[in-house]
Amino acid sequence: MQHDGLGDMHNPSLLPVALFDSGMGGLTVLKALAKCLPAEDMIYLGDTARLPYGTKGRDTIIRYTLKAAGKLVDMGVKMLVVACNTATAAALPTIRDHFAPLPVLGVVEPGAMAAASASRNGQIVVIATEATIAGGAYQQAIARIRPEARVLGRACTLFVPLAEEGWMKGPIVEGIARRYLKHIFTPPVTALRPDTLLLGCTHFPLLLHALQRVVGPHVRIIDSAATTAQCVKEELTWRALLRDAGHSGISRFLTTDNCARFARTGSLFLGRPLKPDEVDLIDL
Amino acid sequence: MQHDGLGDMHNPSLLPVALFDSGMGGLTVLKALAKCLPAEDMIYLGDTARLPYGTKGRDTIIRYTLKAAGKLVDMGVKMLVVACNTATAAALPTIRDHFAPLPVLGVVEPGAMAAASASRNGQIVVIATEATIAGGAYQQAIARIRPEARVLGRACTLFVPLAEEGWMKGPIVEGIARRYLKHIFTPPVTALRPDTLLLGCTHFPLLLHALQRVVGPHVRIIDSAATTAQCVKEELTWRALLRDAGHSGISRFLTTDNCARFARTGSLFLGRPLKPDEVDLIDL
Repeated sequence: MQHDGLGDMHNPSLLPVALFDSGMGGLTVLKALAKCLPAEDMIYLGDTARLPYGTKGRDTIIRYTLKAAGKLVDMGVKMLVVACNTATAAALPTIRDHFAPLPVLGVVEPGAMAAASASRNGQIVVIATEATIAGGAYQQAIARIRPEARVLGRACTLFVPLAEEGWMKGPIVEGIARRYLKHIFTPPVTALRPDTLLLGCTHFPLLLHALQRVVGPHVRIIDSAATTAQCVKEELTWRALLRDAGHSGISRFLTTDNCARFARTGSLFLGRPLKPDEVDLIDL
Repeated sequence: MQHDGLGDMHNPSLLPVALFDSGMGGLTVLKALAKCLPAEDMIYLGDTARLPYGTKGRDTIIRYTLKAAGKLVDMGVKMLVVACNTATAAALPTIRDHFAPLPVLGVVEPGAMAAASASRNGQIVVIATEATIAGGAYQQAIARIRPEARVLGRACTLFVPLAEEGWMKGPIVEGIARRYLKHIFTPPVTALRPDTLLLGCTHFPLLLHALQRVVGPHVRIIDSAATTAQCVKEELTWRALLRDAGHSGISRFLTTDNCARFARTGSLFLGRPLKPDEVDLIDL
């Protein structure tokens, strides 16, 4: 194992938390984590060269995720967060087995748990990419936790490029969100009246305010980035791996392609400027 | 060489025209070709498994394009159209060399020529994906044909997912187009008043009517699908490879991934329903 200066192998709590995503969306999870656990160091790896994972076969996704996770684990980390819906759905059990006893957390379970407990009437809408909705990971996870819940999945394909373009509010975003969601949340006759909207894609928290305006103030929006950060905190607390609050956490960013683009688009997800020299290019 | 029933090796004019694209956008070129040359048989290959090409390295794009083109040429074809901007920009000279004397046409030159000759004041706006604009292929092609022209490239990232979602007109599309283009076509003070808009992406013809409403009726919109079809007709005529007008052309569709999705989204680009059983899955 390589000691990279961020942690200390003799005191595991000093090691960083690693986050992996196929791209930059997982930076919303890093942002939520930094807010929730400001003392923790973090390493983020975005496999942008092999984007998108969503259209690739399951075996390929598992192979890519294992390789990326191995790279991070070799750097010395105390926990791994698979901050990518596609990789979580396809590869989480394999990653957990492979790197045990390292704690490994995905983004699906935390979001599903939060939505299942937030909804009063058990009527939940999950929005995500076409691949995530078709794969059914969120729907199945909610069904395991709250079997009587009625879950409707809706692919919102345009939300990813909208977020990447930095168009996060205003009439265009709300117009698109209305077209995807309005008929679901204001049904004229049907009995289904969802009270909870689960954001099943790491890009979607950028559109939170526009989405709340469209679905109305009575609908609870569950941001899976924020709920994943909360689960990381619980896991680290339970394992006594939390870092002393006196430290001011630092983050490193690794990408497999085009550092300048990572810095530019990543800034939107991170909510703070990311300079190209904060991002390192690596080969997997 | 394999005789596939569409043509006859002893009379090359009976062979089909082959079209290659990384995905489904090139179907707008096939649609334009079918309109312009209804007697021709066609084979279309969309390498959807390895989408998108735009973010990949030049050598990889050349390797993928050579492989796909080789597959089509082995089937017996009389002409190859690289109906993909990224593949044209990266691989056209290599493909031409490799398969000479087979005529090979890309989508960049026809669009550039048409825009250069359509513009009266030499002020041309090219819209395309981020990768195409950054690569500068259209800007350079226009500069070669009409060196004094002033060409402005504008990446319109959201147009591709909009077209694939089938949202082709109405306030959302026009709102997005206005945000990308309005300030360019209605400048309050600057001297630049473009009179020509070149669609430098095979997806964009789907949005033609919305774009015309946004840029105004005085702006000439050049659709590179239609101009490419015109060039194919000229090339086949010049080489005496045009098929007898009595034949009613048939088309075959090949994809490297997910025939059902190809048929569904492809129908939008083709402007007619495409049944899943018209699409064959192949491995490259």
